[in-house]
Amino acid sequence: MPPERYAVGIDLGGSKLRAGLLSQSGQLAGRLEIQTEAWKGPASVLANLKGLITQLLDSTDRSRVAGIGIAAAGQIHPKTHAVVYAPNLDWHDVPVREEIESAFGLPTYVENDVRAAAWGEYRFGVGRGAQSLIAVFVGTGVGSGAVMDGLLLHGFNNVAGELGHTQVVKDGLLCGCGQRGCVEAYASGSGFVRRLEAALGAGVATSLHQATGGEPARLTAGLVAREAAQGDRFAREIWAEAEQYLGMALANYVTLLNPELVVLGGGVMITVPALADALAERVRALTTVLARSVRVERAALGDSAGIFGAADRVWVSP
Amino acid sequence: MPPERYAVGIDLGGSKLRAGLLSQSGQLAGRLEIQTEAWKGPASVLANLKGLITQLLDSTDRSRVAGIGIAAAGQIHPKTHAVVYAPNLDWHDVPVREEIESAFGLPTYVENDVRAAAWGEYRFGVGRGAQSLIAVFVGTGVGSGAVMDGLLLHGFNNVAGELGHTQVVKDGLLCGCGQRGCVEAYASGSGFVRRLEAALGAGVATSLHQATGGEPARLTAGLVAREAAQGDRFAREIWAEAEQYLGMALANYVTLLNPELVVLGGGVMITVPALADALAERVRALTTVLARSVRVERAALGDSAGIFGAADRVWVSP
Repeated sequence: MPPERYAVGIDLGGSKLRAGLLSQSGQLAGRLEIQTEAWKGPASVLANLKGLITQLLDSTDRSRVAGIGIAAAGQIHPKTHAVVYAPNLDWHDVPVREEIESAFGLPTYVENDVRAAAWGEYRFGVGRGAQSLIAVFVGTGVGSGAVMDGLLLHGFNNVAGELGHTQVVKDGLLCGCGQRGCVEAYASGSGFVRRLEAALGAGVATSLHQATGGEPARLTAGLVAREAAQGDRFAREIWAEAEQYLGMALANYVTLLNPELVVLGGGVMITVPALADALAERVRALTTVLARSVRVERAALGDSAGIFGAADRVWVSP
Repeated sequence: MPPERYAVGIDLGGSKLRAGLLSQSGQLAGRLEIQTEAWKGPASVLANLKGLITQLLDSTDRSRVAGIGIAAAGQIHPKTHAVVYAPNLDWHDVPVREEIESAFGLPTYVENDVRAAAWGEYRFGVGRGAQSLIAVFVGTGVGSGAVMDGLLLHGFNNVAGELGHTQVVKDGLLCGCGQRGCVEAYASGSGFVRRLEAALGAGVATSLHQATGGEPARLTAGLVAREAAQGDRFAREIWAEAEQYLGMALANYVTLLNPELVVLGGGVMITVPALADALAERVRALTTVLARSVRVERAALGDSAGIFGAADRVWVSP
């Protein structure tokens, strides 16, 4: 039996740099985590990234490492794997693959973090063995990745899966993207904050004012769910709309792709686990009858999904 | 150079049976067309189908024919390729592949007609050379097929692409499928008929009453567009909503899949060519910014798309 091979996996997020060494059989070892410190700029972040990779490579037989996979929170150039734009890092056109390949001489693949997490769940998480899945992550925003017949969908500009910017209300609430009626405006951390700001500006009385200490930016999905459960009218209203519109967007996604499985993850889903059940019910109620057999499950890999998925792309990328 | 190989392509629709012989280089020859006469039942239709295939096989060197591809207007079993359900044919569980394979001894593939047409446009029509596309056909209903990186999306139950049953209005108009707010209830031949029936029932005055000779079932998209252009208030309203909601559903599809190309076809698009331009504009206006570069084109193969696509599946099916 040939010795097992490894791939380095990195999750390059706005707040944390996470790393690990994934064996081809799916074991994740050497998990490392540091602060991204994005405010220090790309050169500093890349230096830290290289430090993590060096640590991981020093911990194993380097000749057995097949390559490096990086999940990055941003738009990735489909050919060069540069980070074209990453708002949470404030990066524009950072040639990540080029930097890492020239530093380590190992084939390097950069994947959008949400798609990498979807791939991680498909290969090593709750989606193991599924023919097809969509993985939806609800946090500050709403993102997703889809795998059909073993193919991770990238799209022409490498931006497939923008579920948060599908529109569920004609001429609806203004979204951070500039459009109106996007599901993200109703059902995401940033959407909740915007709604609370608008409500307070309009003089609406809500216990969320006290719960956030008068600072709407401190609002979380957990607070909305808690105050809604306690009977605050505004919190109930925005929570109900979040469930409704997220359910509708998800059902439409299922109707279009007919996946075997929907995987639900992300910060909001972790803070309010009951949301997953509510969404599962809505998806089954609203999906076209033939696709309604879809299973809905919570994500299994937590904040390691991106590392798993990014590392594994080393073996599947062309 | 080895002699060219061929595949038989059939489009088995509710009103017509269309057939042809496709060369591997993409030339379609021997085009035949007869009435389906679905009311005579599956045995009769299958006998006619076999007659067409025999005609085509007799017209060429049979040893060069690689197989038979059939596009059928219904739900196809993903493994057995039986027609599970075809409302326009009134078929339930008709073992089409089994029948044809045992009659001719040639590998046979049955594909949903809309997906086959999408594949036809991708391989031989306006989508030739595209990395990815979604093809949307608007007629009595609204159907679609998507090709991503060369993969025709089928989904887990072989029912991917049901764009007509994505919901664009929460608690909106009742659709023929039993759900509310589906795009098909606003923007399809059957949707227009239902809307006119409801309006006449409610005493709405509209020139569509005269235009259909008092029979709402005779309403076509062409009549709606014509009467809207002539200033009929009700016709303008339902035409505007059709454009709006079809545009919204299309934009959401583009936002989710980020295709290089959107192909627009089907009876409504042929009757009212201007609709394609209106939809192209809406898609560009409503799609998330990163996917907005999408091209929107009219379908090129007309009612031959299904024959092309079905025949070609002989070479790509596993």
